[in-house]
Amino acid sequence: MPETIPEDSVGLVEPQRLRFEEPLELASGRTLPEYELVFETYGELNADASNAVLVCHALSGDQHAAGWNSMEDRKPGWWNNLIGPGKAVDTNRFFVVCPNNLGGCKGSTGPTSTNPETGKPYGPDFPIVTVGDWVRSQERLMRRLGIARWAAVIGGSLGGMQVMQWAIDFPDSLHSAAVIAAAPRLTAQNIGFNEVARQAILSDPEFHEGRYHEHGVVPRRGLMLARMLGHITYLSDDAMRAKFGRELREGRIHFGFDVEFQVESYLRYQGKSFVDRFDANTYLLMTKALDYFDPAGDYGDDLAEAMRRARARFLVVSFTSDWRFSPARSEEIVRALLAAGRDVSYARVEAHHGHDAFLFPIPYYVNVFRGFMNRIPLEG
Amino acid sequence: MPETIPEDSVGLVEPQRLRFEEPLELASGRTLPEYELVFETYGELNADASNAVLVCHALSGDQHAAGWNSMEDRKPGWWNNLIGPGKAVDTNRFFVVCPNNLGGCKGSTGPTSTNPETGKPYGPDFPIVTVGDWVRSQERLMRRLGIARWAAVIGGSLGGMQVMQWAIDFPDSLHSAAVIAAAPRLTAQNIGFNEVARQAILSDPEFHEGRYHEHGVVPRRGLMLARMLGHITYLSDDAMRAKFGRELREGRIHFGFDVEFQVESYLRYQGKSFVDRFDANTYLLMTKALDYFDPAGDYGDDLAEAMRRARARFLVVSFTSDWRFSPARSEEIVRALLAAGRDVSYARVEAHHGHDAFLFPIPYYVNVFRGFMNRIPLEG
Repeated sequence: MPETIPEDSVGLVEPQRLRFEEPLELASGRTLPEYELVFETYGELNADASNAVLVCHALSGDQHAAGWNSMEDRKPGWWNNLIGPGKAVDTNRFFVVCPNNLGGCKGSTGPTSTNPETGKPYGPDFPIVTVGDWVRSQERLMRRLGIARWAAVIGGSLGGMQVMQWAIDFPDSLHSAAVIAAAPRLTAQNIGFNEVARQAILSDPEFHEGRYHEHGVVPRRGLMLARMLGHITYLSDDAMRAKFGRELREGRIHFGFDVEFQVESYLRYQGKSFVDRFDANTYLLMTKALDYFDPAGDYGDDLAEAMRRARARFLVVSFTSDWRFSPARSEEIVRALLAAGRDVSYARVEAHHGHDAFLFPIPYYVNVFRGFMNRIPLEG
Repeated sequence: MPETIPEDSVGLVEPQRLRFEEPLELASGRTLPEYELVFETYGELNADASNAVLVCHALSGDQHAAGWNSMEDRKPGWWNNLIGPGKAVDTNRFFVVCPNNLGGCKGSTGPTSTNPETGKPYGPDFPIVTVGDWVRSQERLMRRLGIARWAAVIGGSLGGMQVMQWAIDFPDSLHSAAVIAAAPRLTAQNIGFNEVARQAILSDPEFHEGRYHEHGVVPRRGLMLARMLGHITYLSDDAMRAKFGRELREGRIHFGFDVEFQVESYLRYQGKSFVDRFDANTYLLMTKALDYFDPAGDYGDDLAEAMRRARARFLVVSFTSDWRFSPARSEEIVRALLAAGRDVSYARVEAHHGHDAFLFPIPYYVNVFRGFMNRIPLEG
């Protein structure tokens, strides 16, 4: 954390926690008898609770979207560039809520939580959850916070998929919807990458069918490989070229299998540090939620038909160098919204960062996002 | 093998073997005291040995480029679509030679061969070889076969890189050069994918620092992951969509981690079957040869300067859906050749197969390739 808190920062924040004792029936047919959601909030809820914004996180994200959790934090929350006083999502105006998703590993009920039926951690017995399940758990959170309708639901990547599902499943519970760097569903290639990541974890001898904690180990190698692979798909070829080129870490080739190119060093570091902060069972669950996401599937494979249920005004944003969820995928969403007669703005942002661009304060992106948020009328 | 040999097939072929007792000094500074090369030939060498064509193989390729090795073979050689009587590389006209590269695992000296210094298999002690090393070993093969100059050196992917190196290092030893689906050097993203594949192998507990055969095991999981990942990069997103879409293998979602989508089934099958026919140490060596390939590096990072050494006439071919080595990368090669004043034809082939397109008999590709080969003047 910087020595003085920047004026456009939400500053120090503490995660909050709510317990839900009403069972949640899941898409898989299984039921979570009870669960907790951990979340952070930024800004203040206004008198008529009309200024609340729900932020949905992506694959490896969590509830810590902005500010710092302690004076020792090296980095702020994952969307700190976009959320704060005067920022695109202006906490002087909005009350922002960001929960950790069910199945997560940062405090919400997930594989590392205690299974009330056995008294032991769920581990691999935690049910597979879908984007629809998450949205229903978030809707309960909304009601518990005394909010009847979100001013906006916003998110990038897997977060943007939750936004779409919100707009379809609870059309009257959100005014606006920002779907950023997302896709209407995964391609076979996307699923292929997820499958390699899963196999890396599942085939790690220290995975122990998901009961690794009982064996006092974690599937480090598998989770590290999954993260390394993920990172390649988050960055564009150009971004990697700009960041690393073909630079050698020590200026010369060694003819060995230690790190030689800077990009190898970066990927190994990213892989290793991820293992210390993320749970392998959660990673598996998140990739499955991605694979299964297919809102058109419930409407005869017609995304426009699905979007006809929606009532929100939409912002869709894509980034030119994003090859994980390319602009063409966002444009499928835009076309479906237009065919459904919905109110939609679309921005195709020139950016070299690849999929990760949605995390960066790229001026055009920030301005479009800010304009969209500022035009949400607040009553209270 | 089909019951009758097709007329445009080279038919049954037997690999040949030559031993080279002159030590080979490698780019790494190490020396191979002696080595063997296994190779196949198709067609007949003419009287003045002016009709010989060298075929260079790619990452997981080998000497078996065309025809069948036995009546039981399920599939012909990897470039059977392009090599044969009347095909683009016409064996009625040319004498085609395809060696397995040094460091390979199909018969040429490599990690599974006996190290004459220890009497045991080389394993991880086999030196890292470069594209330049391969080319020098192939040049010795050329001379041993009584060939003073190749009519053409041809290859796709890593094979195309060997073609470029041939043209630069032995400019007077080839008349023509076909560089197909290649790149002047890897990008950071390409190296990143190779690094994930290597880490999958190196971190497999059954790798045993490369001495897995001494432990009676092979690093199956690592090699399988490496191959699954490779396959995703060989196919285009469109090709995967066409091949698998989002089809479920059993028609419905199971909410589990067994195979659900067809693409998962395909990748697992490809990964598993690769383990039975390829050596992990060889895979590591091949990825390093790719990473290190950088012919411009010896010429002040100026590929045109490198190409000024070349004398061959060139054909460069790229495929529109190839995102591993995209048309833009082939066009870098073409621009360098033009800047160097070389004779070059370029074809950008519309194809949905991704990088693998170079293996398919796509009519425009076949016609361009055939035309290029047919215009090579033969003396004898």
